Amino acid sequence: MSTDMESKIKGIVDYIVADAEQEHRLKNLSIHLQPDKRVIIGILEKLQIILFPAHFGSKKVSEFAVKYELGGLVEEVYSDLTDQITLALLHSEEYADLPKRERKQVAAGLAEQFLDTLPRLRDYLKMDIQAGFEGDPAAFNTDEIIFSYPGFYAIMVNRLAHELHLLKVPLIPRIMTEHAHGQTGIDIHPGATIGRYFFIDHGTGVVIGETTTIGDRVKIYQGVTLGGLSTRAGQGLRNVKRHPTIEDDVTIYSNASILGGETVIGKGCVIGGNAFITQSVPPHTRVSIRNPELLYKPDEFCVTDQSEYWTYEI
Amino acid sequence: MSTDMESKIKGIVDYIVADAEQEHRLKNLSIHLQPDKRVIIGILEKLQIILFPAHFGSKKVSEFAVKYELGGLVEEVYSDLTDQITLALLHSEEYADLPKRERKQVAAGLAEQFLDTLPRLRDYLKMDIQAGFEGDPAAFNTDEIIFSYPGFYAIMVNRLAHELHLLKVPLIPRIMTEHAHGQTGIDIHPGATIGRYFFIDHGTGVVIGETTTIGDRVKIYQGVTLGGLSTRAGQGLRNVKRHPTIEDDVTIYSNASILGGETVIGKGCVIGGNAFITQSVPPHTRVSIRNPELLYKPDEFCVTDQSEYWTYEI
Amino acid sequence: MSTDMESKIKGIVDYIVADAEQEHRLKNLSIHLQPDKRVIIGILEKLQIILFPAHFGSKKVSEFAVKYELGGLVEEVYSDLTDQITLALLHSEEYADLPKRERKQVAAGLAEQFLDTLPRLRDYLKMDIQAGFEGDPAAFNTDEIIFSYPGFYAIMVNRLAHELHLLKVPLIPRIMTEHAHGQTGIDIHPGATIGRYFFIDHGTGVVIGETTTIGDRVKIYQGVTLGGLSTRAGQGLRNVKRHPTIEDDVTIYSNASILGGETVIGKGCVIGGNAFITQSVPPHTRVSIRNPELLYKPDEFCVTDQSEYWTYEI
Repeated sequence: MSTDMESKIKGIVDYIVADAEQEHRLKNLSIHLQPDKRVIIGILEKLQIILFPAHFGSKKVSEFAVKYELGGLVEEVYSDLTDQITLALLHSEEYADLPKRERKQVAAGLAEQFLDTLPRLRDYLKMDIQAGFEGDPAAFNTDEIIFSYPGFYAIMVNRLAHELHLLKVPLIPRIMTEHAHGQTGIDIHPGATIGRYFFIDHGTGVVIGETTTIGDRVKIYQGVTLGGLSTRAGQGLRNVKRHPTIEDDVTIYSNASILGGETVIGKGCVIGGNAFITQSVPPHTRVSIRNPELLYKPDEFCVTDQSEYWTYEI
Repeated sequence: MSTDMESKIKGIVDYIVADAEQEHRLKNLSIHLQPDKRVIIGILEKLQIILFPAHFGSKKVSEFAVKYELGGLVEEVYSDLTDQITLALLHSEEYADLPKRERKQVAAGLAEQFLDTLPRLRDYLKMDIQAGFEGDPAAFNTDEIIFSYPGFYAIMVNRLAHELHLLKVPLIPRIMTEHAHGQTGIDIHPGATIGRYFFIDHGTGVVIGETTTIGDRVKIYQGVTLGGLSTRAGQGLRNVKRHPTIEDDVTIYSNASILGGETVIGKGCVIGGNAFITQSVPPHTRVSIRNPELLYKPDEFCVTDQSEYWTYEI
Repeated sequence: MSTDMESKIKGIVDYIVADAEQEHRLKNLSIHLQPDKRVIIGILEKLQIILFPAHFGSKKVSEFAVKYELGGLVEEVYSDLTDQITLALLHSEEYADLPKRERKQVAAGLAEQFLDTLPRLRDYLKMDIQAGFEGDPAAFNTDEIIFSYPGFYAIMVNRLAHELHLLKVPLIPRIMTEHAHGQTGIDIHPGATIGRYFFIDHGTGVVIGETTTIGDRVKIYQGVTLGGLSTRAGQGLRNVKRHPTIEDDVTIYSNASILGGETVIGKGCVIGGNAFITQSVPPHTRVSIRNPELLYKPDEFCVTDQSEYWTYEI
């Protein structure tokens, strides 16, 4: 490498390091004081194995050793999660100033409370799987849902992250749900509260905001937004109920938007595709839209035979 | 780790293992009797190299060794796929009760039939690439499509998975297409039948249901749903034609929904963006919607100068 | 493996290799003359660490060694990018015929020009983070945005790829932005020109076309398309301005479509959700649609108690 290039690289690094160091001084954060996203995603992968060992466990373990394998994984999750929460608490107003040793004790307690929820979460997830199988004629069996349904993966991650959110762990819950968002196209904020037997079909484009509440046996299709009416006030709206309440036994078809913190969709409603709703709907109501009128005209271009694609090698 | 924590972890594992063992007894499935999702995704990666060696093959192989490299990859796919089909057949009514040895023979036969389709699939995929290049002014060249177009990746995986679906292999085809769904936001069920010269542009949010039939030279944009009218009957609709038929030379613009098993979009139609169609359309028709009227008003808030973002360090 | 199977595999490989070799002869491309997608994605990962070392850097490096770690990463990016550009230039009309040595010199110069932009890009990205925090009441802090917001990842990759696009590097910019598209559901063409303080919230389904121009302090929600009116002319539209211009201080709510190369959305406009716009809008205008009328009816099916899901083991 030329000397010019070497000094250019030095200049780029100096600029970035000086800039980052200034930030560290201001916010008391350094390269070793942020949680590690790769470790957090690793925790999610281990939790998936713990919750569904037959589907995601290592095939190299003999059946008799499964128990020890799972025990080891739970220990790893406990240890990794304690470490990551210890770092994440630096971002909490309450614990940021504790000495590391005490912060780690708090973190270990939170990790333990989180582990306590796993048996209950497995029961909830089994109900979600049932809801998916019952609700989707294209589902071949329940294993297909566990292995491959994005809606199931998204609700699994949401249920896990929501417990950490309730324990007021900073950063980690959102890193988890945004990882699921990236994997599935389904964006559920860890703050959202979701009842039993929840099913999202197809799912791409679904958005479920932070202060949403969803009852039992709710079914949602792709592109549905449960969102806020306006976020113009930005951070001024922190902790305000901005997203709707969906009561039990509601079905919401594709691309419907239901917006606003005071909007309540009553028990047993069916919301049609593309509906745009900013007001409450009484229970047991079917809401649909007058679909936009279709205009038909013969199209002279359409008759062009497109079949003569020129042929070339790729 | 404290003794308390150790016994807590033991309790969690005991709960999950007891729960999972009960399922195994009921469904005769154990940790070693489910296919392995990682291996299935590995098969997809190998197939991508086999089909497009110049683009995805290892750069460490000399050009003269490519043939041997590919031969080795096809052997690996044959072996891995045979193993995975052997496991997946435990989920088939027809073969679940066969002894493992015979099940493996059936699986090897199915894997062989699948490999037979590869040369034809490569020819089809080359036509899809041509359609993409011809149809998209933003496409720089055909290599760009092979390397990076999500619509091309999704149709490649669909064409592969569809062959396994036709061979009645359980679970594996859907695991493949849902992997592509996760990578691309394009959800094509392996049951969908798709003609030649197919192109999906942008693609995020596209849903193509299980019983959809699509002709030749069809072009689809982001957010298009080819779906069912209602799935309220759930599993009662298994194997019923629930999704539309799209004839040759049809273009469907973004976010249009075409629903229902009796809906036929005739040859040469152009369906406008946001159209919501539940009835058949005769050939060579341009269908559009009267777009919702736009309401304009001056906005006093808009004139607020947002340029004075407060500055802080990140 | 049976002799039959071996000769079948040989036949498949022969078919594909013969087919690929014919292409190579025609286009002078061989397996060693395409860029390597894995290396390009690796470059993106290294750039993310260089730009935000505190968040994505290795935790195994002591704080004092960070500078050397970053220096090493910048060197790696320079070297990898030079190699990949050398290959990509085979796809450029201007440089394809240069001898490799000279092509590599051109590539090294382009890689160097790219590195020069990094300090400026970091400053731009810090403004994007500020815009995200200010604009989203669900944002806990700015670290959450850096770690997990898909809109931030997409704009980071776009800003990097756009610089390579301006340097007329073939293939690599699009491979980068389509990787981000796969990770986030946000499809921004590397040709799009985007101003400061840009924020995309949620983001799934956003499409921003090649010739789009966006001013400062623009905010966009999920499902927004900034697209072309028709691409029927296909490659005939190459390099024509086909996508809209969005001036400063514009907010565009979810699922709005703004189409056409002559469409200008004036400074300070607010575009409502689901608007479909193909004409220019004067500055400081709030545009909304008359939302489709909602039809309400009591639904006898809705009152069915769905709570008695049959129970089975999963």
